[in-house]
Amino acid sequence: MRAMKAHVWVMPKRTVLDPQGQAIQHALSSLGFSEVQDVRQGKFFVLDLNGVARAAAEKQVERMAKEILANPVIEEFRYEIVE
Amino acid sequence: MRAMKAHVWVMPKRTVLDPQGQAIQHALSSLGFSEVQDVRQGKFFVLDLNGVARAAAEKQVERMAKEILANPVIEEFRYEIVE
Repeated sequence: MRAMKAHVWVMPKRTVLDPQGQAIQHALSSLGFSEVQDVRQGKFFVLDLNGVARAAAEKQVERMAKEILANPVIEEFRYEIVE
Repeated sequence: MRAMKAHVWVMPKRTVLDPQGQAIQHALSSLGFSEVQDVRQGKFFVLDLNGVARAAAEKQVERMAKEILANPVIEEFRYEIVE
């Protein structure tokens, strides 16, 4: 039950438009980075967890990602437990 | 010169307050996830690159991250080239 960290990535689903990513792609292109064909922007969370075993941590992080960090209608997530 | 992807993580510097992360930590705590001691929120970008060699891609992505994707006053970044 040491301290652990969880990393959570939340990305717009592939089927969902990502206007923020598109804006960045256009900006990069107009600044000379024409090799960038596509940009998708998501969120990245680092959670510090204390006092839970690894198996419990995985379940908790899955629930947090599904219920709070991501909007499952338009976003998908993945996570990993580290340390 | 195949297609490549770059992953870029942009995080608030450790010395900088992260009010968004703190708000999420409080929300999680009040929803019963009391094992979460700290949350830091950052951004995650997936860039599709075309027509550049790997060494050139690394330099380009470093420049994009430094000059456009991150604000070096308050944020730090890391990146990796994949595929």
